Amino acid sequence: METTLFYNCRALRMDEADTLLEGAYVAVEGDKISSVGTQRPQGDFDREIDCKNNVLMPGLVNAHTHVPMTLLRGYGGGCDLQTWLNQWIFPAEAKLDDRAVAAGAALGLAEMIASGTTCIADMYMHTPAIARQVLEAGISANLSCGGVYFGTPGDFSPDTCGDCRNQMELTEEFHGAGGGQILVDASIHGEYTSNIPLWRWMAEYAQKKGLGMHVHLSETQTEHEECKKRWGGKTPFQILDRYGVWDTRAIAAHCVWTTEEDWAAMARKGVSCVHNPVSNLKLGSGVAWIPAMKQAGVNIALGTDGVSSNNNTDLFEEMKFAAILHNGVTRDPLALLPKDALAMATRDGAKALGRRTGQITPGYLADLILVDFDRPHLTPCHSVWDNLVYSAKGTDVVMNMARGKIIYRDGTFLTLDLEKIKAEVETYAMPLLFG
Amino acid sequence: METTLFYNCRALRMDEADTLLEGAYVAVEGDKISSVGTQRPQGDFDREIDCKNNVLMPGLVNAHTHVPMTLLRGYGGGCDLQTWLNQWIFPAEAKLDDRAVAAGAALGLAEMIASGTTCIADMYMHTPAIARQVLEAGISANLSCGGVYFGTPGDFSPDTCGDCRNQMELTEEFHGAGGGQILVDASIHGEYTSNIPLWRWMAEYAQKKGLGMHVHLSETQTEHEECKKRWGGKTPFQILDRYGVWDTRAIAAHCVWTTEEDWAAMARKGVSCVHNPVSNLKLGSGVAWIPAMKQAGVNIALGTDGVSSNNNTDLFEEMKFAAILHNGVTRDPLALLPKDALAMATRDGAKALGRRTGQITPGYLADLILVDFDRPHLTPCHSVWDNLVYSAKGTDVVMNMARGKIIYRDGTFLTLDLEKIKAEVETYAMPLLFG
Repeated sequence: METTLFYNCRALRMDEADTLLEGAYVAVEGDKISSVGTQRPQGDFDREIDCKNNVLMPGLVNAHTHVPMTLLRGYGGGCDLQTWLNQWIFPAEAKLDDRAVAAGAALGLAEMIASGTTCIADMYMHTPAIARQVLEAGISANLSCGGVYFGTPGDFSPDTCGDCRNQMELTEEFHGAGGGQILVDASIHGEYTSNIPLWRWMAEYAQKKGLGMHVHLSETQTEHEECKKRWGGKTPFQILDRYGVWDTRAIAAHCVWTTEEDWAAMARKGVSCVHNPVSNLKLGSGVAWIPAMKQAGVNIALGTDGVSSNNNTDLFEEMKFAAILHNGVTRDPLALLPKDALAMATRDGAKALGRRTGQITPGYLADLILVDFDRPHLTPCHSVWDNLVYSAKGTDVVMNMARGKIIYRDGTFLTLDLEKIKAEVETYAMPLLFG
Repeated sequence: METTLFYNCRALRMDEADTLLEGAYVAVEGDKISSVGTQRPQGDFDREIDCKNNVLMPGLVNAHTHVPMTLLRGYGGGCDLQTWLNQWIFPAEAKLDDRAVAAGAALGLAEMIASGTTCIADMYMHTPAIARQVLEAGISANLSCGGVYFGTPGDFSPDTCGDCRNQMELTEEFHGAGGGQILVDASIHGEYTSNIPLWRWMAEYAQKKGLGMHVHLSETQTEHEECKKRWGGKTPFQILDRYGVWDTRAIAAHCVWTTEEDWAAMARKGVSCVHNPVSNLKLGSGVAWIPAMKQAGVNIALGTDGVSSNNNTDLFEEMKFAAILHNGVTRDPLALLPKDALAMATRDGAKALGRRTGQITPGYLADLILVDFDRPHLTPCHSVWDNLVYSAKGTDVVMNMARGKIIYRDGTFLTLDLEKIKAEVETYAMPLLFG
């Protein structure tokens, strides 16, 4: 197995004790971290990397995204949400095919890798095409199809419901692929785009196959209130709960309008909230009550959502939004600290996705990034935490190691051909969608 | 006079019509833009710059900052505002001398230049030391001392008030220096750190010398409410107005707690608001009602505030915060558009500072930047405006021309010696403040 030694390390371990280890050695064997300490470990290494002026930290976890939507970056801005979706986004998405999705996914993965992401949870269509790009790129991904069912409940059959078939095909072909690089999650796009038989089927399917669950939850006030009207006052969390949707490891994206009662139930059931502050602000959805949810015991992960509502996938930027937004709206400068934002983007995101990563601990996946602190905007450094969350950018990442393999270094992609990807986007995907 | 021609340009002019000119030629003569068009202008140029894959736009205007506070980046985080100020920031600032301020200013200016800033409004101590660094760096700056007076009104005399003396010395030595590169503004730090005789003196001094005015205004609820208690219900804007503080071109930083009545008066008097969304969020001050202020006719500029409450000076990041924050808190995805945020950071910021810059128009200062759009996170480009505000970062800036001189290109500073500055920060300023 290939071995790597990082030395001369300022290592932010992101363990529960939030250890910052100076002068550390971090050794990698195969796809795992094999040792962490301040003494040079014994033995020879295939590769030794000097971390001078850099901070070594766990790769970032983007726990809610739609990676092929990279193709729609900045498309259809300047109109209200319904117009944007109905007149711009949906018609463009309807033209997508596997090849265009693959191109968009590859471009999106390149952007993510360059900005320090090593693990994602994605929900989109043409999912096998995404899975193949992920396997090539080298990061870990929880993939899901975002199940939709608009038919009458009585007509439902998993064999005729397109998204049940998609789910089953995806699971069979890709769950556990790449030695666990891909995990397939069961998925319900949202309460408002499906109904009881799909919820019941998806919950049972997740149980049967041992899958996690990925759902959009209470993103907008309209979605939340209309659900309550439809279901006798039940919130989206509550009505899905009745059909067993949360009886597995589950991630609920957005949670802007969830209630205190929902939070208590989420904490009890171990359902993670994925906070997407940029998307929620940009689309005018509102501000999720993250400090209160944390207080209630809910595990909080961080996501960028799709590029079309962000419009990038830089988790450093997302951490900054998360870290300062809640201070501002609650008028408490201590509402969320840099350590909290970092935990959301690493350790707690990994937990949400059922992954043994997100911290620099022996036995964990070797998902590691180097952040170059020798830059004007990171000088001086009174606090590694504060500099990472408030001052750094995704472009400060100079190395990305995913599952023990270096996939990006000093601006160069080692698993992806960026020029080829850009050409494919320009000559195939753009004409198909917008030509 | 030196001449430069930018060709092959995608030029975002930031004129009132928000023109995006494709295939443009932008010519510079001396420190001014001499022509803009789609035909190659006649004559030879000392230098021609191919703008392929780049967007040419006006340099950004940071209308409220405290540049030497770069030294305090991330210092004293994790405590409440009063503890942070009293136990961390003020004691460190008390140790500052001219040399340390110069080092901090130089480092701060380097960061600003690298991220596309060409013009700032600064308020700080040891201002002559800042002025000398600005002259060397090459950008334009409105400098002010942030006048404070805690004495009893009866004891006031401009000859014994330290900040009046500072103001007079700064004006005499630096107002108009560098052919207008430096403008000195009169300044009152804030209503809560001064009283009537200083307000009256500063207002009269600004009139007499033809200076602008720079004031912190209604940043926190405490400041705003305590002012009303002290002054029979008058807001900070109103009480300062009574003493003539706004009877010149003036910028009011923050304005988080200003009222509708204040906005009407600001619009009438032409007082600009400088919005600092990151600082206001991070410190828990709140959210300024920018869309409503704009609606009321107030000119809105953008600022990063000092690095210690941000913790960087990237105006691209600040534009994104401004552009999406108000959508989120008003739950209107159209509350603020990319064009609005760009105007705040260019054209309207220039107006606030009394500068003929911030747009690509013949006769205006040649403050120009190139943003490299050939990066994964800026691909594809459906909208230059959306990509600039939502997707770009300060690190995408590859060229900064200030007042007709290229001061930064492809990571290299042409007026500053970054290594020398960092050494000075490390070996002189850090030991002085924290040793």
